[in-house]
Amino acid sequence: MLTNRRTIHIEWGDCDPAGIVYYPRFFEWFDECTAALFEAAGFPKWDLVRGRGIVIPMVDTRCRFLIPSRFGDDVVVETGITRFGRSSFDVHHRMLKGEQVAAECFETRVWTRMEPHGAMRMKAEEIPPDVIQMLSDGIK
Amino acid sequence: MLTNRRTIHIEWGDCDPAGIVYYPRFFEWFDECTAALFEAAGFPKWDLVRGRGIVIPMVDTRCRFLIPSRFGDDVVVETGITRFGRSSFDVHHRMLKGEQVAAECFETRVWTRMEPHGAMRMKAEEIPPDVIQMLSDGIK
Amino acid sequence: MLTNRRTIHIEWGDCDPAGIVYYPRFFEWFDECTAALFEAAGFPKWDLVRGRGIVIPMVDTRCRFLIPSRFGDDVVVETGITRFGRSSFDVHHRMLKGEQVAAECFETRVWTRMEPHGAMRMKAEEIPPDVIQMLSDGIK
Amino acid sequence: MLTNRRTIHIEWGDCDPAGIVYYPRFFEWFDECTAALFEAAGFPKWDLVRGRGIVIPMVDTRCRFLIPSRFGDDVVVETGITRFGRSSFDVHHRMLKGEQVAAECFETRVWTRMEPHGAMRMKAEEIPPDVIQMLSDGIK
Repeated sequence: MLTNRRTIHIEWGDCDPAGIVYYPRFFEWFDECTAALFEAAGFPKWDLVRGRGIVIPMVDTRCRFLIPSRFGDDVVVETGITRFGRSSFDVHHRMLKGEQVAAECFETRVWTRMEPHGAMRMKAEEIPPDVIQMLSDGIK
Repeated sequence: MLTNRRTIHIEWGDCDPAGIVYYPRFFEWFDECTAALFEAAGFPKWDLVRGRGIVIPMVDTRCRFLIPSRFGDDVVVETGITRFGRSSFDVHHRMLKGEQVAAECFETRVWTRMEPHGAMRMKAEEIPPDVIQMLSDGIK
Repeated sequence: MLTNRRTIHIEWGDCDPAGIVYYPRFFEWFDECTAALFEAAGFPKWDLVRGRGIVIPMVDTRCRFLIPSRFGDDVVVETGITRFGRSSFDVHHRMLKGEQVAAECFETRVWTRMEPHGAMRMKAEEIPPDVIQMLSDGIK
Repeated sequence: MLTNRRTIHIEWGDCDPAGIVYYPRFFEWFDECTAALFEAAGFPKWDLVRGRGIVIPMVDTRCRFLIPSRFGDDVVVETGITRFGRSSFDVHHRMLKGEQVAAECFETRVWTRMEPHGAMRMKAEEIPPDVIQMLSDGIK
């Protein structure tokens, strides 16, 4: 399974008046980490969207927050795909602060075709075999 | 059980290049809806934080996205508390688009004391009986 | 000149570790206030974009921050258009906290046609007379 | 004058339904770039805030947007200080897309002491000579 690692430097503007990360920010980072995983596998998001007309919207996500983080901290997110269905797939993120797991996130997304001229007309499609292979093996 | 309803007008800046809500925004709205529920029960967040030194950080949240929404849409979020533990509690949000459930979110938060001068020194505390009563009954 | 007023309730997640609004949030609010002004004049953004294929991107904006605001505060933004050019126009926002001006923002935007299938192919267009008239007078 | 350079990879979630960067994001990036400049000079924000009790709130900022950017683009921001007053100072950012200036931002901030226990009790202070020297020369 291809795993991608990404370092995040936590900024002042990511944090709330308690001085710790405002939790919706984590979902922004995890969304970027999923995009980075696809990019590492050879499928950058701009190419998926503009080249293939494909988006991968979220249908279900859960995050457990174990250790708080604050501005100035560096954390590392490890991202991989844990299941491929016909058109849906599951992503797993582990956010590490040193040796410890600071947060853990689970996603289910769907491989979806955007119709021209209409954002609301999207329909699920079978995930292409090359995408599955690249994200499974990470061998080009 | 006290239920609070809040209307959200979806803005241009809440949406992504697919024209639908960028999903981390939902978590911002649900966080505001939990704050609004506490305010409806007589415990506005500024008073919790500045008056009592209490914050209610998230430890676990999950959201299912059922129907996409786009800018210009109005949605209504219904929020209530579904469980009180000693120091943790569960919140449930249903986002309605007309008659349909567009999204559903589950939260577990902890009643936590902020220590002066140190955002990282927080510790869980027993939820006071008046808070439980007000959020359970909604009768002041 | 049509002036629109909009109340903003400042949320926990809008604020930074200093406990005051993280200033990029102001620009989100002012963008929403400009959209609300157009909506008040009979041109909701979803109709501009989906019906007319028009967007109004920012080319220049300046904000002065006079009084800090923090979560729990309610502020009112007064928005109006102060100049119409051929395709560009200026917007002015005053954010009031009680009687005092807490912030003031100036915008220059351009009436722009979105080309199908290509976000980057946008070109300025003459602002239609009905838009100018409605935003000048506010009389439908 | 110390100049700091920072590369920004524009993400899907930074962009709006027109497919280009939602402009308030630029202010988040410029705020991070100012923090990065201070860090490059030996004054990381966490140390300013936690060690010295200093914040540098914005009092006036202006941004001109010259060339739109979209997700997948990499841009570089060059940041430097262009004026030191007694307690206020000006920051200048140039965002480059290849050889072209895509955006340009001007900031006036104030060197400000946070009082314990009260986010609203902040007062301007003289900028220390070592801060001025390090940010002027960039020589430690």
